[in-house]
Amino acid sequence: MNPRFTVAQVAQLVGGRVIGDSEKVLTGFAPLESAKESDLSFATGDPYLGMVKSTNAGAVLVPQEIEGVSTSLIVVDNPYEAVVGLLSQVYPPLYVKDERISRMAQVSPLATIEEGVTIGPFAVIEPYAVLKRGCVVMAHCYVGEGTEVGEDSILHPQVTLYKGVKIGKRSIIHSGAVVGSPGFGYLEKDGKRIPIPQVGAVEIGDEVEIGANTCIDRGTLANTKIGRGTKLDNLIQVGHNVIIGEDCAFAGQVGISGSTVIGNKVLMGGQAGIADHAKIGNGVMVGAQAGVSGKVKDGEIVIGSPAMSHTVWRRAAMAFPKLPELLKRVRRLEKLVKEGEKDE
Amino acid sequence: MNPRFTVAQVAQLVGGRVIGDSEKVLTGFAPLESAKESDLSFATGDPYLGMVKSTNAGAVLVPQEIEGVSTSLIVVDNPYEAVVGLLSQVYPPLYVKDERISRMAQVSPLATIEEGVTIGPFAVIEPYAVLKRGCVVMAHCYVGEGTEVGEDSILHPQVTLYKGVKIGKRSIIHSGAVVGSPGFGYLEKDGKRIPIPQVGAVEIGDEVEIGANTCIDRGTLANTKIGRGTKLDNLIQVGHNVIIGEDCAFAGQVGISGSTVIGNKVLMGGQAGIADHAKIGNGVMVGAQAGVSGKVKDGEIVIGSPAMSHTVWRRAAMAFPKLPELLKRVRRLEKLVKEGEKDE
Amino acid sequence: MNPRFTVAQVAQLVGGRVIGDSEKVLTGFAPLESAKESDLSFATGDPYLGMVKSTNAGAVLVPQEIEGVSTSLIVVDNPYEAVVGLLSQVYPPLYVKDERISRMAQVSPLATIEEGVTIGPFAVIEPYAVLKRGCVVMAHCYVGEGTEVGEDSILHPQVTLYKGVKIGKRSIIHSGAVVGSPGFGYLEKDGKRIPIPQVGAVEIGDEVEIGANTCIDRGTLANTKIGRGTKLDNLIQVGHNVIIGEDCAFAGQVGISGSTVIGNKVLMGGQAGIADHAKIGNGVMVGAQAGVSGKVKDGEIVIGSPAMSHTVWRRAAMAFPKLPELLKRVRRLEKLVKEGEKDE
Repeated sequence: MNPRFTVAQVAQLVGGRVIGDSEKVLTGFAPLESAKESDLSFATGDPYLGMVKSTNAGAVLVPQEIEGVSTSLIVVDNPYEAVVGLLSQVYPPLYVKDERISRMAQVSPLATIEEGVTIGPFAVIEPYAVLKRGCVVMAHCYVGEGTEVGEDSILHPQVTLYKGVKIGKRSIIHSGAVVGSPGFGYLEKDGKRIPIPQVGAVEIGDEVEIGANTCIDRGTLANTKIGRGTKLDNLIQVGHNVIIGEDCAFAGQVGISGSTVIGNKVLMGGQAGIADHAKIGNGVMVGAQAGVSGKVKDGEIVIGSPAMSHTVWRRAAMAFPKLPELLKRVRRLEKLVKEGEKDE
Repeated sequence: MNPRFTVAQVAQLVGGRVIGDSEKVLTGFAPLESAKESDLSFATGDPYLGMVKSTNAGAVLVPQEIEGVSTSLIVVDNPYEAVVGLLSQVYPPLYVKDERISRMAQVSPLATIEEGVTIGPFAVIEPYAVLKRGCVVMAHCYVGEGTEVGEDSILHPQVTLYKGVKIGKRSIIHSGAVVGSPGFGYLEKDGKRIPIPQVGAVEIGDEVEIGANTCIDRGTLANTKIGRGTKLDNLIQVGHNVIIGEDCAFAGQVGISGSTVIGNKVLMGGQAGIADHAKIGNGVMVGAQAGVSGKVKDGEIVIGSPAMSHTVWRRAAMAFPKLPELLKRVRRLEKLVKEGEKDE
Repeated sequence: MNPRFTVAQVAQLVGGRVIGDSEKVLTGFAPLESAKESDLSFATGDPYLGMVKSTNAGAVLVPQEIEGVSTSLIVVDNPYEAVVGLLSQVYPPLYVKDERISRMAQVSPLATIEEGVTIGPFAVIEPYAVLKRGCVVMAHCYVGEGTEVGEDSILHPQVTLYKGVKIGKRSIIHSGAVVGSPGFGYLEKDGKRIPIPQVGAVEIGDEVEIGANTCIDRGTLANTKIGRGTKLDNLIQVGHNVIIGEDCAFAGQVGISGSTVIGNKVLMGGQAGIADHAKIGNGVMVGAQAGVSGKVKDGEIVIGSPAMSHTVWRRAAMAFPKLPELLKRVRRLEKLVKEGEKDE
C-alpha cells in the first residue's frame, strides 16, 4: 500500500522544478536524517537546508536551489505545504467514505439521512438525528436523539454524541470522544447531591477536530460552544457552559472547568487547567501544566500554578531550587547583623 | 421539543405565588443576564436579586417580593430548588427507559434480567450478569460475567463493566467509563514485570455518578469501593484497592493512586492527584492540581504540590514571583554587611 | 466461583512445606490484617513476618519457619511469587478465550484470521487486518484496515485500533484504549490550521500492557513505537512520533508530547508530563506531576514542574512554605542594616 512515483511526477503534483535526476522512483516520505534513497524528504529553512548535502533521501523538496548536492532537488515556494499536500493526495484517509449504510447499523426510521452519508456497522442513529450530506459515521458510533452531524464531518469508531448535540461541517471527532454528557452540577439538600438536569446542549462549529477520549459536557441551561476551526487534542475535559472561540488549539489532557469563556486563537500546552468562570482573552498562550483562574487579557502568555506572566515565572522557577541555600544565607546574615548590634 | 407553560402554571408546579402578569407564556429557561421575554429565570440572593430589575426574562422565581420590577415574579421558598424541580419535570431525561430489550443486543441466557429493564442495541450482557428491576443499559454497553447493575441505575452508551462488578441502585454511569479493569500491579522478576492477577472486584454504592471516560480499577485481593452518593466527574482515574467514602465529589481529571482510603464528604478540584496508600479524612477539601500524599486530617483544606494547608499555600504562592527580587536583596544585604564588617 | 483447596493442596501447588494443620480448607486470599480463618495470606519480610502471630488467616505463605504461631504455615522460597502464581492458577482470567468467532461480529473476508482466535460480539475486523494465532478480540472492538494483533494478545471490550497498527505477542489492551489516532499536527495557513496527514503508524512490542482509555497517536511519517514489556496505566496520552523503550512503567494520566524519545526501564509517577522532543535516558525515574523537558540523563530521578533532581526538589519544596516568613525576615534585616548605616 506504499506510494510509488518518480521525481518528475512529484514535481508535477506540487508544481515544482526538478534539479538533478528526474526519473528516480520514490516510495516513501521521511525526515532528512532518516531518509533512504527511495524516500522523498523536505527542507524548509535553516538548519535543514544545511542537512540536504548529507541526506540519503532520493529527492528533497527545497525552497531554493542548493549547490553541490548529489540528491535530486524539487524547488517549490513552500516545501512544507507541498509535503502536506502530497501526503493528502498520495495516502488514503484514515476513514472509509463509501457512501454506504451498513446493514449492521441501527438507524431509526425517524432519523434524517441525507445523500452520500456513510454509516459503519453497529452504529446507532436515534430518532430525529440528522446526518447531513457526505458525513461519515464509523463503526460503533452512537448519535443521540435530535443530534446533527454536519456536511462531510467524520466520526471515527466508538464516538458517543448524547442527544441534542450539533456538529458543524468538515469537523472530525476521534474514537472514544464523548460529546454532550451532562455537566457536573448538583443541588445540595440535606447533605445529599441531587443532579441538576442539564438541559442545554453542545454546539460545535465547522472544521473543529476533537481528539480521542476527549469529553465535552452539555450546558446547564444554555449551550456549551466550541468555535470554528478549534482543535482539541486527546483526553481533554471541557465542562458545562464553557464557550471556546475560533481557531484555538489545546494539547492533550487540558481541563477547562465549567462556565469558563475562552477567546479566539488561544493556545494551551498539555495538562493545563482552567478554573471555572474564568475569562481567557484572544490570542492568549497558556503553558503546559499551568493552573489559570480569573481573567487573562488578550495576548498574554501565562504559565505556572497559580499562573503568572511567563517572564516572571521563568525567573521565579529558576530561583526556586536556590531556596534552601537562600534560607541559610538569611540565617547567616541575621547572625552577623545581631552580632554587629551587640558589638555596638 | 421546547417546554410551553404560563406563569400561572409554573407557579402551580412549584407551589409559588405570582406577582404581576400570570398569563405570559414561557418556553425556556435562562440565567438573568441572557434571558429573553419568553424565558423563565431565577434569583437566589445577592447580587442576583438586584439584577431582577434589569432582566428581560418574562418571569423570575424569587425568594421574596421585589418592588419596582416590570417582569412577573413567582415567590417561592427556594428558587434554586424550584428551578431544578421544574427542569426535571419539564425536560425528558437523557436516556430512554422504554423497558424493552433490543433484538440487536446480545443477552446471555445465563444472565438474570429482572422486570422493567431496558437494554439498547448492540449491548452485550455476559453469563451470570444480573440487571435489577428498572435499570437501563444503553447501546454498546458491555456488562461482564457476574456483574450486577442495581435497581433503576443507568448505563449510558459505551460503558464497559468488567466481570464481577457491583453497581448499586439509582446510580448513573456515563459513556466511555470503564469499571473493573485490572489495576497496575506487577511482580518484578529477572527485570520483567509479570502482571499480578487482580482477583478483587469493584463495589459501587447507591446514587453514585461516574463521569464520561472515567476509569475505576478492580482490587487486587479485596474490592475497590465507592460509597453511596459519591459523584465522580469525567476522565478520573481510581486505582486498585482504593476506598472512597460517601457523598464525595471529585472534579474532572482527578487521579487517585492505588490503596488510598478516602473518607466521607471529601471534595477535590480538577486534576488533583493523590499518591498511593494515602489516608484522606472526612470533609477534606483538596484544591485543583494539588499533589497529596500521606495523611490528611478530617476537615483540612489542602492545595499545592506537594500539598499543604491552603492558608500557608496562598501566602507562599503569592510570594513565589518575588523570589528573584528576594535573591537580589539578599545579595545586596550580604555586600552591605560585609562592607560593614570591613569598616569596623 | 470461589476457589476451595486444603493447605496441603496449596503446598503442593507452590512446592512448599507445611508446618501445622494441613487439612484446613481455604476459600480465599486476603492480606494478613483482614484475613479470616478461611483465607490464605502471605508474609514476605518485615514488618509482615511479625504480623503472622496475630493474623486470623487459616494459613500463611512464609519464607522461613516462625515460632509460636497458631496458624498453619507454608514455607516457600518466595511467598510473593507463590501467591501470584496461585492467583493465576486458581482464578479464571478476565477474558474468555473460547476460540470462537461470534456470529454477531463483522469480520471482513479480506482479513486474515489465524487458528485459535476468539472474536466477541459486535467486533469489527476491517479488510487486510491480521489476527494472529490465539489472540482474543472481545466485544465491540474495532480493528482497522491492515492492523495486526499478535499471537495470544488480548483486546478487552471497546478497544479501537485505527488502520495500520501493529500489536506484538502476548500484549494486553484494556477497554476504551485508542491506538493509532492521528497526532496533533497542523499546517498554519492564512490563520487556519490544516491537518497534516499522519501517515506513520504505531508499533507496539510484545508483552506490552495498555490501560483503559489510554490514547496512543500514530506517527506523522515514521511510526510511534512502544517497546517490549512496557506497561502503561489508564488515561495516558502518548503523542505522535514518540518512541518508548522496553520495560518502562508509567502510572495513570501521564502525558508524553510528540516526538519525545524515552529509554528502557523508565518509571513515571501519575500525572507526570513530558514536553515534546524531550530525550529521557535509560532507567530514569520521573516523579508524580513532574513537568519534564529537554534531556534527562540515564538513571536520573527528577520531579517538580519544571523538573529537577529529586534531592534538590525535596529541599526546595520543604522551604517553599517558609517563603512569606523569609520575605519578612529580609525586610527586617534591610531595616536593621539601613539603621546601622545611619548610626555610623
